[in-house]
Amino acid sequence: MHARQGRALNGAATYTARVPRINEHYLNLRAAYLFAEIRRRQAAFSAAHPAAHVIDLGVGDVTRPLPPAVVRALHEAADDMARVETFKGYGPYVGYEWLRAEVAAQDFGPRGVTLAPDEIFISDGGKSDSANLQEIFATECVVGVMDPVYPVYADANVVAGRSGAADAAGRYAGMVYLPCVAENDFQPALPDRRVDLIYLCYPNNPTGAVATREALARWVDYARAHQAVIFYDAAYEAYIADEAVPHSIYEIPGARDVALESRSFSKNAGFTGMRLAYTVVPKQAMGRSADGRTHSLNALWTRRVNMKSNGQPYIVQKAAAAIYTPDGQKQVQALIDFYMANARVIRDGLLAAGFTVYGGRNAPYIWFRTPSGVSSWDFFDRLLADVQIVGSPGAGFGPSGEGYFRLTAFGSREQTEEAVERIRRRLHP
Amino acid sequence: MHARQGRALNGAATYTARVPRINEHYLNLRAAYLFAEIRRRQAAFSAAHPAAHVIDLGVGDVTRPLPPAVVRALHEAADDMARVETFKGYGPYVGYEWLRAEVAAQDFGPRGVTLAPDEIFISDGGKSDSANLQEIFATECVVGVMDPVYPVYADANVVAGRSGAADAAGRYAGMVYLPCVAENDFQPALPDRRVDLIYLCYPNNPTGAVATREALARWVDYARAHQAVIFYDAAYEAYIADEAVPHSIYEIPGARDVALESRSFSKNAGFTGMRLAYTVVPKQAMGRSADGRTHSLNALWTRRVNMKSNGQPYIVQKAAAAIYTPDGQKQVQALIDFYMANARVIRDGLLAAGFTVYGGRNAPYIWFRTPSGVSSWDFFDRLLADVQIVGSPGAGFGPSGEGYFRLTAFGSREQTEEAVERIRRRLHP
Repeated sequence: MHARQGRALNGAATYTARVPRINEHYLNLRAAYLFAEIRRRQAAFSAAHPAAHVIDLGVGDVTRPLPPAVVRALHEAADDMARVETFKGYGPYVGYEWLRAEVAAQDFGPRGVTLAPDEIFISDGGKSDSANLQEIFATECVVGVMDPVYPVYADANVVAGRSGAADAAGRYAGMVYLPCVAENDFQPALPDRRVDLIYLCYPNNPTGAVATREALARWVDYARAHQAVIFYDAAYEAYIADEAVPHSIYEIPGARDVALESRSFSKNAGFTGMRLAYTVVPKQAMGRSADGRTHSLNALWTRRVNMKSNGQPYIVQKAAAAIYTPDGQKQVQALIDFYMANARVIRDGLLAAGFTVYGGRNAPYIWFRTPSGVSSWDFFDRLLADVQIVGSPGAGFGPSGEGYFRLTAFGSREQTEEAVERIRRRLHP
Repeated sequence: MHARQGRALNGAATYTARVPRINEHYLNLRAAYLFAEIRRRQAAFSAAHPAAHVIDLGVGDVTRPLPPAVVRALHEAADDMARVETFKGYGPYVGYEWLRAEVAAQDFGPRGVTLAPDEIFISDGGKSDSANLQEIFATECVVGVMDPVYPVYADANVVAGRSGAADAAGRYAGMVYLPCVAENDFQPALPDRRVDLIYLCYPNNPTGAVATREALARWVDYARAHQAVIFYDAAYEAYIADEAVPHSIYEIPGARDVALESRSFSKNAGFTGMRLAYTVVPKQAMGRSADGRTHSLNALWTRRVNMKSNGQPYIVQKAAAAIYTPDGQKQVQALIDFYMANARVIRDGLLAAGFTVYGGRNAPYIWFRTPSGVSSWDFFDRLLADVQIVGSPGAGFGPSGEGYFRLTAFGSREQTEEAVERIRRRLHP
């Protein structure tokens, strides 16, 4: 039996024995997952200042209770689980067909998009789907990401070995960044070199930007011409207010050949604590093997889900199905209206305080410039220390997020108004 | 825009364009995931014989309703989600601490094992944990698996690139098989060559075998001496009836340095349709990087969970916490007693029918030999066609499972008795 040596605080030590090799791509990641780091700093502040009334507009978590139609469905489903006649064990790995049929009929049908239920995969969250979809592609695939964007797209590809190491700004050598900054209206240019997988998020987290039909068509045409695959994250589509803005990438002709689309019940129906989402993988989307054959991405993803998941909880799927009832639809719309009223409060307040503000019109995120010369993490610390507000530093979403900051519209009305009041009175750019 | 060529039925065609490369390790997998294939054959039979009364003792899904204490907790949790004061959004990625504390105190404390809550990671299933834990290790790691065993361990390592191709028997060149057959009492010998990751499952799925304290100590000593990591799947520990059999690998001195352990609420509390499980990653378990430094597996797994999961549903975690109340404990025990009575019915019936039978004493699985010269898939088809019973062919669990067959004790009493009666009257080895 070999002795184990003492180790340093970070758990590492010089050690010559043959414990198993780890996935060293993890060592390329930034120190902590963005939202875990935000929570850590928030907790440290609260521990040091127990009397402080901290307002959290950081992580983007909803605060309104579940819609009554959803709660009713939860109770009914709990009762189903209590009786042998109606008890449900393992469900279909890909989700119950009655839920997938509602998704196809109600989320896509009205927008002129026809999907088959077996093109829809129910999952435990947009985060998981964002992280997992890359698994069916080769390590050699080159990844393009909007910058800034939800950090999971990049991080999942980092640990899959597609990135190499990061520079000081957090920019990975092997990744193609598509900067979205005020100067280009937060609309990225097409990649200037070959990419295989393109991650797009509209309405965008964190900038709040949306893509017009023309902008999306440009991406679809690009992907078709260059044989790339688009992963389209539409987690915030319910917040689109502008009639002309597409809700699904499949509204663009030809998109089914080249695009996968994810959505979530987290931000429309308040399911962040319920965990349910879905991804569309059209049957005609293809990848290839080295021998030149093509393979259906739908078949590959089905195989992956069959192997690694036992499906989602029956009660949660029943709860989601209630969203598609007339009552559910009305209640979800009321939630969205509530949060978008918050967004106006934040926008107006930040503008009145002299900040340069973006987003918040078709998205629940307000994106604004930090005061000149103040880094986004420094602004995070200052906002927390000076006015006890937690936000999200732009740099956490990618190198081009530096100099920006995100606040979410998902707080309570009272806390949102109080936060804006504190910023207006006690903090100036 | 490039034209796409027609493709064959399997979605493949000779194609020279540059659609993204897929993860070709998927092509090394057997044609279908075992239980998906079982469901497919069952559905095809039922479609062809709509009047047939098929009894499913195949997939190993529970049939009894949730314990009343769990249902009560579900209703309470649903009401929590209905009020703004008690609503829960995102929870901790690794699970609520109140649940992890119960796990530590009640699942491990009574067996003399002290765990910290941050060594326990709540997940959506033992299947996911079985599939995902390998992600924090290097591709070069050599994997040893019991054979036969739950197919996910091998499959997840196949698509991670650790296996190479399979031979006709489904044996992967790059994997080390640890045969468990009647001749060695289903207790595998230690590996005869270097392995980095060892997957052990006790009580075993599918053979129903358990490991004595001495047998487990031999594995822990081996892992310590050879610097391997054990992934110990104890999903069925609640079925251990023999007082002398350890429930946790951490009952063996030194195991915390080298073993991760997974458990599930699926088979004790009937959570197959609820999706909740957990994995223990002790803080002193280590891996290494190429430069010789060691890294905490707990820190790596924490990073992985933070990045790829948003935690499990609040309501499901509340339901699981109810299992640890005195009422919950009694009700869970009643479930286990019920299924173990089924196990006796099946054991006795198969013995009376002349089969050679194993398992079913400390596990909800009965493992028996197929009739001489009949392959396990042929026996599957024959059992379905002749007596309309669905079981699980041994070969689906690994090459050494050929010639064996699994039935589960998770059916209703009536169906279990009816199945045994059909086998005794209409099928003989």
